[in-house]
Amino acid sequence: MDAITQPPIIRLHPEDGVVIARQVLPPGTSVAPGVTTSARIPAGHKVAVVPHVKGEPVRRYGQIIGFATEAILPGQWVHTHNLAMGDFARDYAWGVDARPTEPVPVPATFLGLRRADGRVATRNYIGIVTSVNCSAHVAELIAQAFRRNPLTGEDPLAAWPNVDGVVALTHKTGCGMTEGEPLRLLRRTLGGFARHANFSHVIAIGLGCEVNQIGGLLEEQRLSGRLRNMYIQEMGGTRKTVQAGIDFVKEVLEEANRVRRETVPASELCVALQCGGSDGYSGITANPALGAASDLVVRHGGTVILSESPETYGAEHLLTRRAVSREVGQKLVDIMHWWEEYTAREGAEMNANPSPGNKAGGLTTILEKSLGAMAKAGTTNLVDVVRYAEPVTAKGFVFMDTPGYDPVGATGQVAGGANLLCFTTGRGSVFGCKPTPSIKLATNTPMYQRMEDDMDVNCGTILTGEESVQQVGERIFRLMLATASGQRTKSESFDFGAAEFAPWVLGATM
Amino acid sequence: MDAITQPPIIRLHPEDGVVIARQVLPPGTSVAPGVTTSARIPAGHKVAVVPHVKGEPVRRYGQIIGFATEAILPGQWVHTHNLAMGDFARDYAWGVDARPTEPVPVPATFLGLRRADGRVATRNYIGIVTSVNCSAHVAELIAQAFRRNPLTGEDPLAAWPNVDGVVALTHKTGCGMTEGEPLRLLRRTLGGFARHANFSHVIAIGLGCEVNQIGGLLEEQRLSGRLRNMYIQEMGGTRKTVQAGIDFVKEVLEEANRVRRETVPASELCVALQCGGSDGYSGITANPALGAASDLVVRHGGTVILSESPETYGAEHLLTRRAVSREVGQKLVDIMHWWEEYTAREGAEMNANPSPGNKAGGLTTILEKSLGAMAKAGTTNLVDVVRYAEPVTAKGFVFMDTPGYDPVGATGQVAGGANLLCFTTGRGSVFGCKPTPSIKLATNTPMYQRMEDDMDVNCGTILTGEESVQQVGERIFRLMLATASGQRTKSESFDFGAAEFAPWVLGATM
Ligand SMILES: [Ca+2]
Ligand SMILES: [Ca+2]
Ligand SMILES: [Ca+2]
Ligand SMILES: [Ca+2]
Ligand SMILES: [Ca+2]
Repeated sequence: MDAITQPPIIRLHPEDGVVIARQVLPPGTSVAPGVTTSARIPAGHKVAVVPHVKGEPVRRYGQIIGFATEAILPGQWVHTHNLAMGDFARDYAWGVDARPTEPVPVPATFLGLRRADGRVATRNYIGIVTSVNCSAHVAELIAQAFRRNPLTGEDPLAAWPNVDGVVALTHKTGCGMTEGEPLRLLRRTLGGFARHANFSHVIAIGLGCEVNQIGGLLEEQRLSGRLRNMYIQEMGGTRKTVQAGIDFVKEVLEEANRVRRETVPASELCVALQCGGSDGYSGITANPALGAASDLVVRHGGTVILSESPETYGAEHLLTRRAVSREVGQKLVDIMHWWEEYTAREGAEMNANPSPGNKAGGLTTILEKSLGAMAKAGTTNLVDVVRYAEPVTAKGFVFMDTPGYDPVGATGQVAGGANLLCFTTGRGSVFGCKPTPSIKLATNTPMYQRMEDDMDVNCGTILTGEESVQQVGERIFRLMLATASGQRTKSESFDFGAAEFAPWVLGATM
Repeated sequence: MDAITQPPIIRLHPEDGVVIARQVLPPGTSVAPGVTTSARIPAGHKVAVVPHVKGEPVRRYGQIIGFATEAILPGQWVHTHNLAMGDFARDYAWGVDARPTEPVPVPATFLGLRRADGRVATRNYIGIVTSVNCSAHVAELIAQAFRRNPLTGEDPLAAWPNVDGVVALTHKTGCGMTEGEPLRLLRRTLGGFARHANFSHVIAIGLGCEVNQIGGLLEEQRLSGRLRNMYIQEMGGTRKTVQAGIDFVKEVLEEANRVRRETVPASELCVALQCGGSDGYSGITANPALGAASDLVVRHGGTVILSESPETYGAEHLLTRRAVSREVGQKLVDIMHWWEEYTAREGAEMNANPSPGNKAGGLTTILEKSLGAMAKAGTTNLVDVVRYAEPVTAKGFVFMDTPGYDPVGATGQVAGGANLLCFTTGRGSVFGCKPTPSIKLATNTPMYQRMEDDMDVNCGTILTGEESVQQVGERIFRLMLATASGQRTKSESFDFGAAEFAPWVLGATM
């Protein structure tokens, strides 16, 4: 694309009063109809396109990033000299920005797998959950018996084309741990996977003497009857348990294969939002584009799950304003307090303040910095807040408390029931989260081209001016529907998604 | 074996003043030459075989478990009514029980693999270490390309018979973590594996943007030049990195295969001691038998590593008495204080006091309870104390600080350089720890028979009276030599040992 024809700015949201300079803009550059820059604007920085009176909120991503500390005219540079958070951080302003979501006139559909209980799956796997690391290898051996041979192409599941595979979900914990929240959290995670709609059948394998007893897991997670349970010690060791596991899978393959895809409304989408390996472009390309797609998901009646609590920290006031009730907002505030205690106890630190480097790059306030990640969730109301790995049942924009670290965060989201995951990355992440397909969104074209085997969408076109944020958002939404209908993602082509199962490890290892 | 001919008691160590009732002993049962029980002795309880004056130490496992609170005559029941710890717990008595180790007249040998740097390996693997979970699946895909097909038996390494395999060491951490001890500990662990003698060649694979940068790992662990490093982001994604990894392995296979086993002294053994899934027999069969074998290893000039700090807690006074210096003893005491802080911070509790159930089963003091696990290390001097995953360089009995949880503990021990691991289990554990072979010791015959596919040694013969503790100890020692010489363990026959790689997770996940 010819550099001359590129628009000089990026508009992140239709309602924004500022736009972002794509490169250094000399004074007199046209940035909106009838608006030209009144000074040199550094690359990545903000320029006003509408007038702001002193004290008026300034919006980016359609959301408040602070308040004008003096009158700002269209064409003026907006940064620390005329923009600040003011008393914003002291006022949760519960729900003041909540507003009805405008539904779409013609709801979209996809080809989903309707389960007997009414839930809709996007994939059809057989799962093996493990209570403890001590049963991990046995679970792997069972899954291995059904794995396509990468050299010969021989596929033990060839006769059951509607079965996507056998997934062993193994981890490093489950014993040498304290009861209480560390164990409950692990059980929520395992329970969430065990009842995930993308599994037709699930085996639970334990050793027998672990702290995380399968009996307790089943009871706490109300899973009795849903799973085939096996204890290695009871079965008489490795060989017999592996054989029993293989026999079980063979026994259920015919039934598992009997699913058929049917047309279902897009409201059945439950999309986990994730970013990892972020770069300076994340906040102006892939994340806002995913936010535009998230708004579409919600307008079509579906659910998006924002997480990564440390990246929301300091900007929770943005979300409390969008909360549908004070109760929902309060849950988020409580989570942020918990994080302060957790990190203090562990000798770590919560600090979301923009660094000098952030400021040089054009970020003025904490809100703006956090929005770089939070933009993935778009602009609709916050309808619910849940703990790590809790079932997500609300329709709309839901927040789940998780760390920012991708595998741990995504594991909580998939446990919560996400049947699709969208992952934005600037540096380039390779990621999967079986049984849920993971769509990877590149923030910039050079990385997209370098890692094309792994990237599903190039959002770098926003930077080059080939597409608007909204256009890329619509493209992502269409890919969500296609992926949910069975189209393979790049990460599925490499069989990603078992190694990345990573329940959050809380508490002491004894 | 005829029940009538079974000796009624178990002698755990030649120097013990008490023996253990194999079953309920009526008054008048002969328990030693010229000694008969003067009262009914419950099963698993202690009976004196020598006289003790008031205040005299009482020994079990050759070690002090407390002091006579009144005179004890041969044949008397020994329990809480006449045995207590007294002021023992307040006195570290640095080194008072240290004494010269009696070397064996004719040192044993095994067939080891002598590396260029002089170290001796017991296996010959090619390793893939990963800096972060984000590179786990790529590492797995490389290892998979060299895995024997369990269905067809096709072995991609058939032409290189001296290569034991390609091991991908993957984990769930490496990013979203704080620098400081959590990161240093992970790097010690990865560094210990990267330089393990049982690896001929090692690749290190990272994503590129993780907290645990490979550059920092190499520098901190002084590994520069030893490893082939790959960053997925630099290489251009999954396909190219996997191909480069496969190419590297193919490139080094010829050289890796060039090793030959040669006769080396048993002093080259470095044996990690581990127990898991313990039962009431652990402390009277497998653990003391392994202790007898440990004493042989040390008398032959080798090293044994005791760990599982929570199981030593409250009995550290036993080990400070056997420490070769006050400095070595002090390191152990410092570790126990660290554990008090760690568990308090995490809302867990250190409590080694015998429970009412323990007491009913015959355990009188903390020392005795902890010795149930510590007995694995035998009776020689404590020559060194190291932190988790630190290199073990001393010859003799070394303590390494680890949790009791098997995979996490063993991972630290193997990182420290253990070239053999012995694992006692009562309930029946299935375990491996590549690149180090793991010998499994059953505490009782019924479990051994039920899980014979997984168990290498039956120590239940001590309980049935077929063998003495010392006899089983000698049998274990001979199996150590055979295993170190290349004989496969049960767990190696099932390819255990990659899933169980589990670095200790300290600190917050962000
Ligand atoms: Ca992030
Ligand atoms: Ca993330
Ligand atoms: Ca071979
Ligand atoms: Ca233990
Ligand atoms: Ca253990």
